[in-house]
Amino acid sequence: MGASLARNLSRNVDGSVAMFDLDESKISALVAAHPEANLSGFSHLPDFVAALAVPRVILLMVPAGRPVDAVIESLTPLLTDGDIIIDGGNTHYPDTERRVAECAQNNLRFIGMGVSGGEQGALLGPAMMPGGDPTVWADIAGLLEPIAAKAEDGQPCVTLVGSGASGHFTKMVHNGIEYADLQLIGEAYALLRAGGRNAAECSEVFASWNTGEDRSYLLESAATVLAQSDPDTGGALIDYVLDHAKGKGTGAWTVIAGADEGVSVSVIAESLFARSISSATAERQAWAGDPVSASADLPVDAVRDAYMAARLIAYQQGLALLATASETFGWNVALAPVVRIWRAGCIIRAGFLDAVSRVYAENPECVSFLSMEPFRGQLLERLPSLRQVAAEAILGNVPTPALAAAVNHQTMLMSGALPTALVQLLRDFFGSHTYERTDQEGNFHIIWEADRSQHRR
Amino acid sequence: MGASLARNLSRNVDGSVAMFDLDESKISALVAAHPEANLSGFSHLPDFVAALAVPRVILLMVPAGRPVDAVIESLTPLLTDGDIIIDGGNTHYPDTERRVAECAQNNLRFIGMGVSGGEQGALLGPAMMPGGDPTVWADIAGLLEPIAAKAEDGQPCVTLVGSGASGHFTKMVHNGIEYADLQLIGEAYALLRAGGRNAAECSEVFASWNTGEDRSYLLESAATVLAQSDPDTGGALIDYVLDHAKGKGTGAWTVIAGADEGVSVSVIAESLFARSISSATAERQAWAGDPVSASADLPVDAVRDAYMAARLIAYQQGLALLATASETFGWNVALAPVVRIWRAGCIIRAGFLDAVSRVYAENPECVSFLSMEPFRGQLLERLPSLRQVAAEAILGNVPTPALAAAVNHQTMLMSGALPTALVQLLRDFFGSHTYERTDQEGNFHIIWEADRSQHRR
Repeated sequence: MGASLARNLSRNVDGSVAMFDLDESKISALVAAHPEANLSGFSHLPDFVAALAVPRVILLMVPAGRPVDAVIESLTPLLTDGDIIIDGGNTHYPDTERRVAECAQNNLRFIGMGVSGGEQGALLGPAMMPGGDPTVWADIAGLLEPIAAKAEDGQPCVTLVGSGASGHFTKMVHNGIEYADLQLIGEAYALLRAGGRNAAECSEVFASWNTGEDRSYLLESAATVLAQSDPDTGGALIDYVLDHAKGKGTGAWTVIAGADEGVSVSVIAESLFARSISSATAERQAWAGDPVSASADLPVDAVRDAYMAARLIAYQQGLALLATASETFGWNVALAPVVRIWRAGCIIRAGFLDAVSRVYAENPECVSFLSMEPFRGQLLERLPSLRQVAAEAILGNVPTPALAAAVNHQTMLMSGALPTALVQLLRDFFGSHTYERTDQEGNFHIIWEADRSQHRR
Repeated sequence: MGASLARNLSRNVDGSVAMFDLDESKISALVAAHPEANLSGFSHLPDFVAALAVPRVILLMVPAGRPVDAVIESLTPLLTDGDIIIDGGNTHYPDTERRVAECAQNNLRFIGMGVSGGEQGALLGPAMMPGGDPTVWADIAGLLEPIAAKAEDGQPCVTLVGSGASGHFTKMVHNGIEYADLQLIGEAYALLRAGGRNAAECSEVFASWNTGEDRSYLLESAATVLAQSDPDTGGALIDYVLDHAKGKGTGAWTVIAGADEGVSVSVIAESLFARSISSATAERQAWAGDPVSASADLPVDAVRDAYMAARLIAYQQGLALLATASETFGWNVALAPVVRIWRAGCIIRAGFLDAVSRVYAENPECVSFLSMEPFRGQLLERLPSLRQVAAEAILGNVPTPALAAAVNHQTMLMSGALPTALVQLLRDFFGSHTYERTDQEGNFHIIWEADRSQHRR
């Protein structure tokens, strides 16, 4: 991925791109393999640093964790005040928050940058989410904008997301939304199959959904992979794929961040836990004697509307988490540019994100793009289908935890009074945690054991 | 709570109970207030330590976090090899894991102990979940067993849960299950109200459910609080309680641990996030213009069976998390004694836990008590009601995220093939993450872009 980014850079910016790797043979092979690119290779760190113009901009593409700290340690004595280190890896944001502070003490500017798009994206144009010192943008924009993916309006899919670890947090949320969208596509697929369609027919359905504002990279991808035949048997490949879905940690981090920040990311959590269950072989085996079979006969349009509604709710959950974390950590993240740079290059790019970005641009203080037009109307129109589909799925043994989480999330937001009133009153009963009232200000407590006719503030 | 435990101790064990607090007036007032108890008070730490028999057993009841480390630091130079420090606070288990190791380096035995039952429980008999050095039980059993709650068969609700931080982890899981049960009771209540019942009628329903193996402290409590009238208006108190449900962190920790350990705790997660949404005032306000009203007309017995089934699933999720964490950390936790000490004294005590404990005692290797009789049969009998109720609730705008999570969790466990197959195939498509097959061993990858008719291991 580092090599692909270097080649992308050499094609798009003036001057030579200096690359460093401890393995000299690796780096010379890379330079030799791409004579068309203006690359120079180093395996001696001081030489590499000396080759860079000041302020130096160094992009690390090393495994997250200890290796990042090791490289920072080696680089620090060689650098000058104001030099810039960018960590382009999949780093957990608390590590980035710490490194930003540590580097600032050495007068270095440390940038945590999420990169999405895979190896192909790195070469042809990724979406990039840098975060850190607000003064840094002037020094890196000229390098990152030319190599970034371009949205349909030509805008590059990179911007300084905010300060501190906001870049890596934004990438984590991106991946959390990706977990949710993948699971929702899986659930829609399960519903289509439960209605008697084969893989090829499901592929056609997903292709037909992939239009206008509804279109997305993942819908298009689903249509593609479901059309894939199995090289061994000639049947549909999906029919031979084991249902164990793995992950690399960012989905779990998003759920953990939601729990930490007190923000519901229930659709993402159900998507994470669906993967956990898929690999819980022993517990699944324990139930193998009582299998359920899925059956559902739902109109394709109802499944589509349910999927589209739940997908919007998942994006909203992720963005609400990002907004809250930005408040908590003082990152100054604006959601409009974040969503703008998700419009191309990244895995969760989708047709409706242009409009989401405009909603946030026009209403910077809004707590939910989904509660604003045109999305509010779209959601209200599709919500009856989401209810119908989630309910029929439960009755028909089609596992749809993410669809159910989405509809319940939205129902809670739209309910005047929630049953959590009883939760809180019970907390007062057994733990004296007090409760609030609907008709008076203050915190109240019933002296339950002693005298049930008394209460006190 | 410390004072209550000290009074409980002085009633139930021989000899004087030495208490320490930096505030001398506080400690002398406490001694003076309880002349019947054999208590002695200290505010000078060396005097306190000198008053204790060796091996010393010191129970800390101080706020979790820095204060625990501060007390350990002050105590360490005063103690002798083999002395025992017990942290009875609500400590996050990673802190306990660290302190166990630090104290072991000083030849001290550090025990993290979860205590459930509130102030009343501390005085009259709490459930206690100590974890740490396996040699410690002989030195603390004589102190803890007499003051613990007693189950119906007379057994004390305390045992050494396992090594390391297992005691605090167990208490965390206890609280996570508590979150789920509270939410499920709230959802059952919402369904009963949506069927036209008032608070008093709901109280009677909960009281009627509270029998035999189905009975629990929380069901009994729900019946009690729903019968409570409001001192101000004379109406049902619940009708004046604001629906903002708070928490103290242990629910979030449980969800985080589930995400860390790769174990689905979806019912607990939905219960946590329901509290988050209840307090998300701005986002709820944004939807106030399009309120939904709850309506459902379900037989009381169906709601009961749905609640009972979902409750079992929530307990199973918590216990699966504990078993997995015990493997991860090498704690050697056996589930039979854990469940046995939850039978009295603690918030989640319930009639069916005696049978759960017996299932684990007879099948120490079983991955799920719920898949074993008598629970398997009970669950299968009640599952149709859970499906019906969760589905009707979604259609009727009754927010029931925990019921829906429970039914989807169980459906996934009982499904032969999950839609996560498509998730994994999509991961191979955009990230080359490979997939497994149902008919052959190994990891496979399609070279999607280059040639769709080839694949490789």
